[in-house]
Amino acid sequence: MKDKFYQYIQQLQDTITSKLEEVDGKAKFREDIWERPEGGGGRTRVIENGSVFEKGGVNISAVHGELPKSMQTYFGVKDANFFACGLSLVIHPKSPIVPTVHANWRYFEMYDADGNIVDQWFGGGQDLTPYYLFDEDAKHFHSVCKTACDKHNPEFYPSYKKQCDTYFWNEHRNEARGVGGLFFDRLKKTDSTSMQDWYNFVTEIGNSFLEGYVPIVEKRKEATYTKEQRDWQEIRRGRYVEFNLVHDKGTLFGLKTNGRIESILMSLPPHVQWHYDHHPEKGSEEERLLEVLKNPKNWV
Amino acid sequence: MKDKFYQYIQQLQDTITSKLEEVDGKAKFREDIWERPEGGGGRTRVIENGSVFEKGGVNISAVHGELPKSMQTYFGVKDANFFACGLSLVIHPKSPIVPTVHANWRYFEMYDADGNIVDQWFGGGQDLTPYYLFDEDAKHFHSVCKTACDKHNPEFYPSYKKQCDTYFWNEHRNEARGVGGLFFDRLKKTDSTSMQDWYNFVTEIGNSFLEGYVPIVEKRKEATYTKEQRDWQEIRRGRYVEFNLVHDKGTLFGLKTNGRIESILMSLPPHVQWHYDHHPEKGSEEERLLEVLKNPKNWV
Repeated sequence: MKDKFYQYIQQLQDTITSKLEEVDGKAKFREDIWERPEGGGGRTRVIENGSVFEKGGVNISAVHGELPKSMQTYFGVKDANFFACGLSLVIHPKSPIVPTVHANWRYFEMYDADGNIVDQWFGGGQDLTPYYLFDEDAKHFHSVCKTACDKHNPEFYPSYKKQCDTYFWNEHRNEARGVGGLFFDRLKKTDSTSMQDWYNFVTEIGNSFLEGYVPIVEKRKEATYTKEQRDWQEIRRGRYVEFNLVHDKGTLFGLKTNGRIESILMSLPPHVQWHYDHHPEKGSEEERLLEVLKNPKNWV
Repeated sequence: MKDKFYQYIQQLQDTITSKLEEVDGKAKFREDIWERPEGGGGRTRVIENGSVFEKGGVNISAVHGELPKSMQTYFGVKDANFFACGLSLVIHPKSPIVPTVHANWRYFEMYDADGNIVDQWFGGGQDLTPYYLFDEDAKHFHSVCKTACDKHNPEFYPSYKKQCDTYFWNEHRNEARGVGGLFFDRLKKTDSTSMQDWYNFVTEIGNSFLEGYVPIVEKRKEATYTKEQRDWQEIRRGRYVEFNLVHDKGTLFGLKTNGRIESILMSLPPHVQWHYDHHPEKGSEEERLLEVLKNPKNWV
């Protein structure tokens, strides 16, 4: 399973980076192959200063070895060996009219002293972070998520949509990071669901990613915007940084397992602003976004 | 002691904000008085878009009540009541030639169920974060720290200088946040040192702050700089954000005790950049700064 899934994310990385280069029309992804001293490594692909994408990374990695002490408590195990592989992407468009997107699909195995698999699961999801809210875009993104989920189980979309709203919650700001999407974790074998079933589900979701995001980019990428709108985007990007550095377990996992710092922190936006006690104007589009972020909606 | 120290930091806030307004010559501090629902509050003063200071806060607060669950483990106590007051300041100058500075002086009391003080201590320090390294500035800042320390105990400066280098260490980047200064915590009554002695020491350090920082600002504030130097400052400010959001216990304490978010996060710089895998040119001033940050020096 681990080889099959790693092969899948390698191909998916190719598919996604090719398509995003085509959409951008100017910038190309730069590739860095890296090795983790304790075992494994990855293939980082980063795009910068494109005509559409200001900064983005589409990274894969497969790491293994002893589970770091700091993660043992988190997983509630002792002295385990692990294997983890996944694809992580974050795309920050230049225009504030085009939303930021994040996705991650991963597979995890834990071993006993004899190398037997004692636990294994899939996790992942994708979520959209607009700076200006077009309801039809949020609906489109969620519709694609729902269609992919529904092929497997009609209960998946409502459950994983809700988990996404819960996970990407910027607790200290009392608001969501964006308009959500899907979040699922610890997808394990049950009486009715095999690991192969979960593989089919997770790859279905991964395959749906471009269909969820690219049409939104194509629709919005030519829109003009003001300096004030760009400032608003950079202020909201500050919240993105706060979430990733204060709350995000994925970032934490990377930092604690001695992951490659530059690959982990590629998720941070290129230009960011923090003003003291900033509030958008009453009745503005910016204020409407905040209201939705404070009260996550059902989009489909 | 708590009333005396709170009175002291109120006066010190006045002294510092007046002097910084004078140095800036254009911007004035804006004041916000706030209350903490669980007990206490503060007086936040923020300066923005000055001719010298792009963003800065000089805040005082005095909070009390039940010690939040999340902090009980940290302090190793159960169901305690606490009082904490302090002055926190972070100043981000506009020019990359002028260093950022941070300082904090605080007093803490813990009570048993009958309201008796069961523990009390002072903490604090100040540290300098240059974007371009002028050795004479680092020496000046540290000299002022050392002179203030030496009036009380010749062992204080070497000990608190070292603790500063250890504390302001950006673990995941393997580099210091800046060129350090002083850091001390849990300054408690001993056989030879009373709380009054510690009060005298901490107020001596607080009183020395302007002498350590202002001459550096005056010396550097008129220097011209290029767009590339400004970019470098914004990239380094990214490391400042990473430290504050990932490692800083002061920020954590504020977030966990339901402090006022805008007062806590006033420490974040106004304009920040993150580029993928950025490295300064070989032999450049930027590279020299990094070398010193990776190997903290003795400045006096």
